[in-house]
Amino acid sequence: MQIALLGGTGDIGEGLALRLAYDTPHEVVVGSRKAEKAETKAEEYETELSSRGLDVTIGHGENPDAAAGADVVVLSVPAYHLADTVDSVADRLDRDAVLVSPAVGMKRDDAGLHYNPPGAGSVTQLAAQSAPADVPVVGAFHNLAAGRLANLDAELGWDVPVVGDDADAVSLIADVAAGIEGLRPLRAGGLENAAEVESLTALLINLAANNEGLHDLGVRFT
Amino acid sequence: MQIALLGGTGDIGEGLALRLAYDTPHEVVVGSRKAEKAETKAEEYETELSSRGLDVTIGHGENPDAAAGADVVVLSVPAYHLADTVDSVADRLDRDAVLVSPAVGMKRDDAGLHYNPPGAGSVTQLAAQSAPADVPVVGAFHNLAAGRLANLDAELGWDVPVVGDDADAVSLIADVAAGIEGLRPLRAGGLENAAEVESLTALLINLAANNEGLHDLGVRFT
Repeated sequence: MQIALLGGTGDIGEGLALRLAYDTPHEVVVGSRKAEKAETKAEEYETELSSRGLDVTIGHGENPDAAAGADVVVLSVPAYHLADTVDSVADRLDRDAVLVSPAVGMKRDDAGLHYNPPGAGSVTQLAAQSAPADVPVVGAFHNLAAGRLANLDAELGWDVPVVGDDADAVSLIADVAAGIEGLRPLRAGGLENAAEVESLTALLINLAANNEGLHDLGVRFT
Repeated sequence: MQIALLGGTGDIGEGLALRLAYDTPHEVVVGSRKAEKAETKAEEYETELSSRGLDVTIGHGENPDAAAGADVVVLSVPAYHLADTVDSVADRLDRDAVLVSPAVGMKRDDAGLHYNPPGAGSVTQLAAQSAPADVPVVGAFHNLAAGRLANLDAELGWDVPVVGDDADAVSLIADVAAGIEGLRPLRAGGLENAAEVESLTALLINLAANNEGLHDLGVRFT
């Protein structure tokens, strides 16, 4: 499959690009608002993969060009860019494309980080509201620590809660997640259950901030 | 230490009573709104512990009597009984007592279970608002699956996020949690960070409902 990572130059995009290219047979395309930035990062990822003996081509382009033709389009952009990003690619999406939303809205104050959902209830639901009516949206990859994800030497051992209202789309994205070594996809319900998944990200960051020796945390349900 | 479990006849109270009595040197007192119910359950717990070779006395009484003299008072009651329960014991609390809030507010609809915090922001903060000003409140034990907790044959391997604004009280409760085999306490910040901890409980239940073979889930941060 072809997987486009919009905002694939950012930290979570980088980790997903490297892991997908390294662990799976999928074709990875990095999108950005600026074509040049996408090209620079794609070359960087290729160099990193090549240093590990994997010679692979990472596609690149402006977000709408990256999205065109992709089977899976991951919105790896900050939550406040999400609706704009969906709008910018909407008329270029493949008719069978699945959108994936990994973004989380958070705010920081003196007490730490807090989950800060948009009016839609969750960022994943905001993505679904923004998407064309016939394009399914799946929430996944919210709880991955970007630094560890992007370090191919690091073992993960993490669970990936997946939410969505379209069962086929959820299965497809669960399969994509399962293709990455050390990730186990788990069904967490429909889009209305996304808030609890996104909220967990703030907890992970608070736990890392308050416990010596813990950093780049993910989660395992057991 | 003396640990009172108000609502200690309920499912999470049962698990905490059995594990604390079995794994730690603390004195356990079961509280209930009805003295007779507390007595019946305390005897039931004693019988269960005795069948495992541990002859120990489990105290019992109405909630206010159970709270009196306790070093730690756990509010193991449903969220909607929380404020009333705190009120009913407030003038009986020891001057150095620490209150512990493990309750979570949730609502169920067709899509599954959702976190449903009170106006205070979280149930833990509601407990803090309800408590006498000089009594510290700590949030802990929100994410424990009651059935597995109460089964002394079951291994846990779970993390326990602990929140609170009083560092000494947080340390005390973290130590209590660490005394139970298979639980690892982790600091998750102040009372304002409780919502993300409580919200996780709804996710755990949704994950168990949507994935074959998974039930009685807890969490491990890794």
